[in-house]
Amino acid sequence: MKKADIGLIGLAVMGENLVMNMESKGFTVAVYNRTADKVKNFVEGRAAGKNIIGTYSLEELADNLAKPRKVMLMVKAGQAVDNIIEQVIPFLEEGDIIIDGGNSHFPDTIRRSEYVESKGLLYVGTGVSGGEEGALKGPSMMPGGSPAAWEYVKPIFQGICAKVEDGSPCCDWVGEGGAGHFVKMVHNGIEYGDMQLICEAYQLMRDYLGMSADEMHEIFAEWNKAELDSYLIEITRDILSFKDEDGSPIVDKILDTAGQKGTGKWTGIAALDEGVPLTLIGEAVFARCLSAIKDERVAASKVLTGPTPKFEGDKKAFIDDIRNALFAAKIVSYAQGYTLMRAAAKTYGWNLNYGGIALMWRGGCIIRSVFLGKIKDAFDKNPELTNLLLDPYFKEIIDKAQAGWRRVCAAAMTNGIPVPAMSTALSYYDGYRCEKLPANLLQAQRDYFGAHTYERLDKERGEFFHTNWTGHGGSTSASTYTA
Amino acid sequence: MKKADIGLIGLAVMGENLVMNMESKGFTVAVYNRTADKVKNFVEGRAAGKNIIGTYSLEELADNLAKPRKVMLMVKAGQAVDNIIEQVIPFLEEGDIIIDGGNSHFPDTIRRSEYVESKGLLYVGTGVSGGEEGALKGPSMMPGGSPAAWEYVKPIFQGICAKVEDGSPCCDWVGEGGAGHFVKMVHNGIEYGDMQLICEAYQLMRDYLGMSADEMHEIFAEWNKAELDSYLIEITRDILSFKDEDGSPIVDKILDTAGQKGTGKWTGIAALDEGVPLTLIGEAVFARCLSAIKDERVAASKVLTGPTPKFEGDKKAFIDDIRNALFAAKIVSYAQGYTLMRAAAKTYGWNLNYGGIALMWRGGCIIRSVFLGKIKDAFDKNPELTNLLLDPYFKEIIDKAQAGWRRVCAAAMTNGIPVPAMSTALSYYDGYRCEKLPANLLQAQRDYFGAHTYERLDKERGEFFHTNWTGHGGSTSASTYTA
Repeated sequence: MKKADIGLIGLAVMGENLVMNMESKGFTVAVYNRTADKVKNFVEGRAAGKNIIGTYSLEELADNLAKPRKVMLMVKAGQAVDNIIEQVIPFLEEGDIIIDGGNSHFPDTIRRSEYVESKGLLYVGTGVSGGEEGALKGPSMMPGGSPAAWEYVKPIFQGICAKVEDGSPCCDWVGEGGAGHFVKMVHNGIEYGDMQLICEAYQLMRDYLGMSADEMHEIFAEWNKAELDSYLIEITRDILSFKDEDGSPIVDKILDTAGQKGTGKWTGIAALDEGVPLTLIGEAVFARCLSAIKDERVAASKVLTGPTPKFEGDKKAFIDDIRNALFAAKIVSYAQGYTLMRAAAKTYGWNLNYGGIALMWRGGCIIRSVFLGKIKDAFDKNPELTNLLLDPYFKEIIDKAQAGWRRVCAAAMTNGIPVPAMSTALSYYDGYRCEKLPANLLQAQRDYFGAHTYERLDKERGEFFHTNWTGHGGSTSASTYTA
Repeated sequence: MKKADIGLIGLAVMGENLVMNMESKGFTVAVYNRTADKVKNFVEGRAAGKNIIGTYSLEELADNLAKPRKVMLMVKAGQAVDNIIEQVIPFLEEGDIIIDGGNSHFPDTIRRSEYVESKGLLYVGTGVSGGEEGALKGPSMMPGGSPAAWEYVKPIFQGICAKVEDGSPCCDWVGEGGAGHFVKMVHNGIEYGDMQLICEAYQLMRDYLGMSADEMHEIFAEWNKAELDSYLIEITRDILSFKDEDGSPIVDKILDTAGQKGTGKWTGIAALDEGVPLTLIGEAVFARCLSAIKDERVAASKVLTGPTPKFEGDKKAFIDDIRNALFAAKIVSYAQGYTLMRAAAKTYGWNLNYGGIALMWRGGCIIRSVFLGKIKDAFDKNPELTNLLLDPYFKEIIDKAQAGWRRVCAAAMTNGIPVPAMSTALSYYDGYRCEKLPANLLQAQRDYFGAHTYERLDKERGEFFHTNWTGHGGSTSASTYTA
């Protein structure tokens, strides 16, 4: 019997769908699951008559794989991944490849990559985005790990992944160690941000402009035809027109408490660790937390006061302002996300291909959009681009969008509509283009109470000064020198 | 010779000053430092003629302590603390107490507390705030750890700590394990927030109203006479009037790049871990990160466009609006900080005394203020207070302040002045009092692409629904049931 091109462990829906996808592209796949029934049901059901080999032990799985063996794990992130790695290693030989396709936290992938390599094997940690449908029809894939593994997994990954219009695959080598899972994590954080921005646009229309779900459906349908064309805008359009059994919009009946699976949180923590201002995603994560305390909010709404939202003016023009606010803030969010990747690349020694990452996100995944093609162009033109905001294309968009963006934020602040993501993006934009922030005062404060010293505008950078602020020459001022 | 009441290891400035403070309150202190010269210089210098005993080995230190021995470490947070704990344990007996007075991260304190207790000893991890001057004259102290240790360290700690007007000590038992260092961490995060808010007020006056340092000095002097009366406002007042050698305001010559020591970051990470929207401190940390990339900002300022700030109207009235924005946002920041402590208390099983914590911060530390007395009152009146915003006193302040707060945020957004902290606080306020956030749309999106299910407003909480959004009954909609 022909040996399989790849083995897959873990037949939950994501795993099964990936197997079906691989098989449909001409690959033979051997499968294994801890529960033997799962394997049996699969090979006798969806996989019947296909080039899919059911196996009932890790040894049998290994025996059925062409060398170098490629074993892909689609199991729950965490301890389960470590356990299976430990169990499968005895059946593998030098040069064989273990692939983790789950939602692992990148520090785990860094650690596992080193461990597996120390055993003479190769390791790949790959982000797989697009949900279950993406897994079946073509996901976005972000592989990182042992560079020597790439040539072996490349034909399979680029075979099954999503493709953009010109046929380019939404999968390329990301970098060493945990680079693939890091990039997937940033993708998920950006997804949080994109969703929050859409929610803010929706709330402005609903609570400030007083629009119905059907009216908003029309707006999102229109937006999806131009620069905002993206999967999330598209499904928002469809959600808004979806009717419940009684014919009323179902979105109006859904409870406003958002869940979160923790990957947004990871992105926020990574940004704090790297010292990168990732404010929009941070606000998006916190906005979900605030939504979760529904009962507290209902109680507070009866006690705390605020203005009654009152819109006066040209509604159509303001809707256009909202579109501009959404678009400009989205650019800021991606600019921040890319800054985080750049910082992490430096910290972990990854050689990231920023244009390539935009291409990987261009199709297949939740944040897929026309917009990502423009980001790819920006980094292809200038791989050293410090900040997306400085790219001429994005600069021009913001130049045009910013008056409306400012009007929306100001109106929201005035009328009591929360816009944490749109407004933090604007503060970031204004802070980033601010030659002189007020941190000079902050440095003076830190020097005053903690003798932290400061640098001066009129002196060389790297020269530190301390002022005896209180004049009484006490311990504070003396401390820098005696410590 | 009389045995010492307490031993202190680590004679850097903070350690020395604490020793001098203890001795001045009538306690005898034995001291030890790894470098013997340090001990010699101290006992022959500042400590000469005082009840301070120099020791040159840990054994000698232990021999000089009254039982139960109290050994306080004032060493650099991190591995050094673990090392010294390991080295000192052999010289201690059951019931003796090890105290860590450094800036340790609370998970370390939880771990060390358990470890030291497993050796039959007691452990105290205490926050000490107020810098070097505070250490000498009366710091704010936040002790947690082994409850049985409190009766022994209480006389010393409450003897040396800061006192408020009525003589109440700014030190009380915080709670078990890492509670003391957790509360100290939140204190530091709040300090970041307070400083950022003052900086935003300063930038609005400087860049929007075009005021000079001297003019701003007058304003902060005035603010310090009323509800904003606090250490940070006071030193800001003094900093603004401080002249360089050439007679010009020194603040204008200081480089606007803020440093950070990482405790603000810890607070942000703790909030993400607990799922508590700590937006203002998060923005304050990120604002420091943004200030740090000065060269990038200078370059960006030449490329990116924005409005020219132009103030028209009643300057005096707008300055009052800024004061209201600062005050209201400050209330939000403390409300968020207290929410974080409440969540952590639940996670870690601490029984925190929220009014007591406000009293500890009321004097001695960097965030000391009249305002904290009001927070103490609020929690004394209602220890179960869910959110500070709901306390009648603070509600009334925000009722009065919010029109000005909104005007300031709107004007900043319109005129290109970054106010990340003031505006995130306003979005939080408006979100917290919002009965219906837009998260219903977000839940629909998550159900659409990931079959995450949702709850409904017209059904019982805890009942989950899934919609077959696409109509084609594909894998997405089916997955919740087959997984």
